[in-house]
Amino acid sequence: MDKLKVGIYGAAGYTAGELIRILLHHPNTELVCAQSGSQSGKKVYETHTDLFGDTELAFDAELDLEVLDVLFLCKGHGESKTYVEQTTFPPNLKIIDLSHDFRLKAPGNEFVYGLPEMNGKLVKGAQKVANPGCFATCIQFGLLPAADAGLFQSEIHTTGITGSTGAGQSLSPTSHFSWRNNNMSVYKAFTHQHLGEIGESLEQLGGNKPTVNFMPFRGDFTRGIITTSYFDTEVSEAEAFEIYEKYYAKAPFTHVTRKNPDLKMVVNTNKAVVYLKKEGKKLLAISIIDNLLKGASGQAVQNMNLMFGLDETTGLHLKASNF
Amino acid sequence: MDKLKVGIYGAAGYTAGELIRILLHHPNTELVCAQSGSQSGKKVYETHTDLFGDTELAFDAELDLEVLDVLFLCKGHGESKTYVEQTTFPPNLKIIDLSHDFRLKAPGNEFVYGLPEMNGKLVKGAQKVANPGCFATCIQFGLLPAADAGLFQSEIHTTGITGSTGAGQSLSPTSHFSWRNNNMSVYKAFTHQHLGEIGESLEQLGGNKPTVNFMPFRGDFTRGIITTSYFDTEVSEAEAFEIYEKYYAKAPFTHVTRKNPDLKMVVNTNKAVVYLKKEGKKLLAISIIDNLLKGASGQAVQNMNLMFGLDETTGLHLKASNF
Amino acid sequence: MDKLKVGIYGAAGYTAGELIRILLHHPNTELVCAQSGSQSGKKVYETHTDLFGDTELAFDAELDLEVLDVLFLCKGHGESKTYVEQTTFPPNLKIIDLSHDFRLKAPGNEFVYGLPEMNGKLVKGAQKVANPGCFATCIQFGLLPAADAGLFQSEIHTTGITGSTGAGQSLSPTSHFSWRNNNMSVYKAFTHQHLGEIGESLEQLGGNKPTVNFMPFRGDFTRGIITTSYFDTEVSEAEAFEIYEKYYAKAPFTHVTRKNPDLKMVVNTNKAVVYLKKEGKKLLAISIIDNLLKGASGQAVQNMNLMFGLDETTGLHLKASNF
Amino acid sequence: MDKLKVGIYGAAGYTAGELIRILLHHPNTELVCAQSGSQSGKKVYETHTDLFGDTELAFDAELDLEVLDVLFLCKGHGESKTYVEQTTFPPNLKIIDLSHDFRLKAPGNEFVYGLPEMNGKLVKGAQKVANPGCFATCIQFGLLPAADAGLFQSEIHTTGITGSTGAGQSLSPTSHFSWRNNNMSVYKAFTHQHLGEIGESLEQLGGNKPTVNFMPFRGDFTRGIITTSYFDTEVSEAEAFEIYEKYYAKAPFTHVTRKNPDLKMVVNTNKAVVYLKKEGKKLLAISIIDNLLKGASGQAVQNMNLMFGLDETTGLHLKASNF
Repeated sequence: MDKLKVGIYGAAGYTAGELIRILLHHPNTELVCAQSGSQSGKKVYETHTDLFGDTELAFDAELDLEVLDVLFLCKGHGESKTYVEQTTFPPNLKIIDLSHDFRLKAPGNEFVYGLPEMNGKLVKGAQKVANPGCFATCIQFGLLPAADAGLFQSEIHTTGITGSTGAGQSLSPTSHFSWRNNNMSVYKAFTHQHLGEIGESLEQLGGNKPTVNFMPFRGDFTRGIITTSYFDTEVSEAEAFEIYEKYYAKAPFTHVTRKNPDLKMVVNTNKAVVYLKKEGKKLLAISIIDNLLKGASGQAVQNMNLMFGLDETTGLHLKASNF
Repeated sequence: MDKLKVGIYGAAGYTAGELIRILLHHPNTELVCAQSGSQSGKKVYETHTDLFGDTELAFDAELDLEVLDVLFLCKGHGESKTYVEQTTFPPNLKIIDLSHDFRLKAPGNEFVYGLPEMNGKLVKGAQKVANPGCFATCIQFGLLPAADAGLFQSEIHTTGITGSTGAGQSLSPTSHFSWRNNNMSVYKAFTHQHLGEIGESLEQLGGNKPTVNFMPFRGDFTRGIITTSYFDTEVSEAEAFEIYEKYYAKAPFTHVTRKNPDLKMVVNTNKAVVYLKKEGKKLLAISIIDNLLKGASGQAVQNMNLMFGLDETTGLHLKASNF
Repeated sequence: MDKLKVGIYGAAGYTAGELIRILLHHPNTELVCAQSGSQSGKKVYETHTDLFGDTELAFDAELDLEVLDVLFLCKGHGESKTYVEQTTFPPNLKIIDLSHDFRLKAPGNEFVYGLPEMNGKLVKGAQKVANPGCFATCIQFGLLPAADAGLFQSEIHTTGITGSTGAGQSLSPTSHFSWRNNNMSVYKAFTHQHLGEIGESLEQLGGNKPTVNFMPFRGDFTRGIITTSYFDTEVSEAEAFEIYEKYYAKAPFTHVTRKNPDLKMVVNTNKAVVYLKKEGKKLLAISIIDNLLKGASGQAVQNMNLMFGLDETTGLHLKASNF
Repeated sequence: MDKLKVGIYGAAGYTAGELIRILLHHPNTELVCAQSGSQSGKKVYETHTDLFGDTELAFDAELDLEVLDVLFLCKGHGESKTYVEQTTFPPNLKIIDLSHDFRLKAPGNEFVYGLPEMNGKLVKGAQKVANPGCFATCIQFGLLPAADAGLFQSEIHTTGITGSTGAGQSLSPTSHFSWRNNNMSVYKAFTHQHLGEIGESLEQLGGNKPTVNFMPFRGDFTRGIITTSYFDTEVSEAEAFEIYEKYYAKAPFTHVTRKNPDLKMVVNTNKAVVYLKKEGKKLLAISIIDNLLKGASGQAVQNMNLMFGLDETTGLHLKASNF
């Protein structure tokens, strides 16, 4: 088949950089336009410096939507909505939005929530996909099979720790190396903005929306998310493993392990790993992803693959960094 | 007054090293013996290399208990008990044990649980003190005032992240730099050994033992512990702040802040900082300490000060590293 | 073509793990045997935990050399020599040794020194290749064009900083996280074992062996090497850039940049980046690589590609981790 | 004696924060004014958050110079000069400047270069002291005894790696955690601004100014500097040790070690450690300091102690963080 013509709106940020890293080696895509207002005219590798030697592509100020098969929106939250509202898109152009602007169900929202493990079939037929949030992705991998099987018999208690790249490249006191190195802190306790999409998924699968008490931590590392979620349930640990393994049986990137995992097992890959432990009445699910890959750009490419009928894993066989 | 003659049993480990760092500048102590079987005859600075230039003291194989006023036990868990059982101590020698061997109430256990914020008066009169665990200390600072005021109306949900020094200096796969750097993992979910002493304190203050669901994480930093604990309660955030501030009003090292803290505020100090947030019915307490100081050797010296009628803060005005 | 049948001798170590990560996605190879005496019978992912979900391969105690097209030797220094001396290899089996046992010229040593940028043609015809050392690779990238052009008019002054994975997975005080995190130290000043192979390359290209004064540092990061080398020379900075760019014109992974680089530009890739600066009479070359890839397993696969007539870059289009 | 009344001009930056940390526990000082234009009216602990619980002092917009015994200037380079030129100081006020504005000899410059190991006597009698640069301090500790003994028989080759706090608290791409974590880079090769003061000291002691070729690296840690310097010399390693030990015999914080040191031996202390190694004709000196203490605020307090006839070490018995 001809290579898909790909455009990126907002190509100077972290998720766009990660997308470009993937797309440059994707066998079925051609990156034809990396749009950036602020970096227009500069080489892509001047911003994403690791791409030096890999591409001579320069940022463009404008996108020529007519030549594109697929457009990734990589601007900040709020900016996608504005752009989509102000733009007339060619009818066949497929759009994948990495912001949270279209993740929640709302009248007139035509975007499919792009979590392949849950919505794979919908994504295959979608014209527009809203790529899930990074924390939301990781937490859901610990909860979706339980929601689907109706296991929740209590509120859910969730802790998550995220790498610094989750906060993007803007400079702020909490992104200063001298502050963040060897440091830990909590932010948005109980009120993180990803709770909305998590709740919608749990309701979609299980018919109700159990409360998720979520404690997010800023971690002193750059890539990755680890989350723990537990709740009361009657099923045994063995039954829970069966339920989770069955749920993810066909998911090429999401694996259930019988051994307590550590975050670096998945860093720099599109994989997710889920582990279970039962203690008394409580079932604990530990899940790990790379926030920029399965939590953002890797999942976006996985969605693209599905939308265009490609093998889901195309271009996503990434070597783990592991160390 | 004459300087207190201090001995350390098991002086080659991390907590002993930290104790020596403090004692060398403590105005009322003289470190007369640093016992170590494995390092006997070597200079202390050969093991605790930062002490080069500060002391020419060498490790001794044996302790002369008769010359000591106070003895710190810094060996591993289990070894303190054996040592105490096999040794006849001079009647006036005061003992502070940093292991968990004597922390739990038991018939014949004469050790006072040395958490000054709760047991300060008992410590003042004690001959033997069991120094609390590091996680136990940090978690209790988030819970003691609530236990004392009877605030718990649900189970307690606690997450903690610890620096690597909490695991001591022995080499293991999870202490290998190539593994631990930029990594995160859970261990002993729901079953951490410090839950016992936490439960006893909550019962002592509040008359009952609410369940503490504790999720401990290995952090990719060296010093410090941050814990979050939340539970249902009817009191408002403002009332909770009052209760906590009143409880710690006379504690020289434990402070209630109205601003969301970060771990490095307390690293390399003997301080603890506690922060509160109410969201719906849930009261969240975030607490932070340095695991080797307020979580171990600093608290041990604070206990020593109390036992000998010194100002509680003597020798513990430590400059934060902060970065 | 049929897939190359690959075996690894000593498959439980870091360089072997990295080799497996690459080979699993290499389009022209089939990993048929991962030998390990200590891990025999266990799944490969029990040791290289990031491979969970990617392969069900188990370690074997023995290698069946007859079925292999190529064998990688990944055991420690000294062990390769012993193994090679004690083993009768099938005549067509190609061997790539990652230890330093066969890097130096010696009577009877049939191994080609496998630095493709210098010895690419020799590697293409080689039956046995000695893969260069990680520091040696990085330092040579800063010096080879200068040697080739006869630029040295003084001794060479070199500093290098290496990630912790360069020291392998064995536990030692200097690999303990509590020690190494945020720490820096020098080792083997002026006497590093890689100076031998560097000297041979400089002599091969330039006809003489200038002294390389090498100051190696242990870095507090896991992956990567950065080296700086400077020497007196008469050529201008502009001329030097031309000489270096010409030398590396056909090297697919080694790039000369006009902008001061940082280490993470190449981490988790097989790339090398070289930068030049002239100040007074001194020409400075800064070079960076990933020690486990271009400094070890990536280069080994590059050599394999050359030895079997494959495109040099096959299987080595690796997504940078960058963060 | 009465406590010295201390003021700080520019009290919101890193070196000022470190100064306050020291002064709060210094037995002979009272911090009466922490000036900051930008933070005026806020509590000091709102900026230097680790000081929460230690002081209720607030920043002032203006300094009342009449009430002060000593004033520390902690503003950026260039701002000290402007301030000094525009201000009329009370005749008895002693001034210690932490910027580089007065470090170099110049007509009309009344500031003594405040390196106690070299200029202790001059500092004792000084009214105004220019506190040395952090890299300059560390490098000089490796060179001063050699300059004093006339050992240099070649150019000097120096590498230094600095923690991130050396660059201050302003936000920049190279201070972003996502960039700097696990990263390394060179800056200002051969042209670092501290070379001027180093050259003046070498000339003062040895009568000539050997070229110092200095390669500075940005390190991925927060505190500390390690430098290596080597040069040709005829003296043996044993003789060199004697020369260095004699030179620092009376220095309370600067120690010569016979064992290869690591950076964390001195972090969070005012100490410096120097190690020597001879290889062929080259003598290598490795030196380490904490850039914010011996490299800035600790040395400033040491200078204050000397200027006021206090014991040089007063208030500077700091517990190492070590981990």
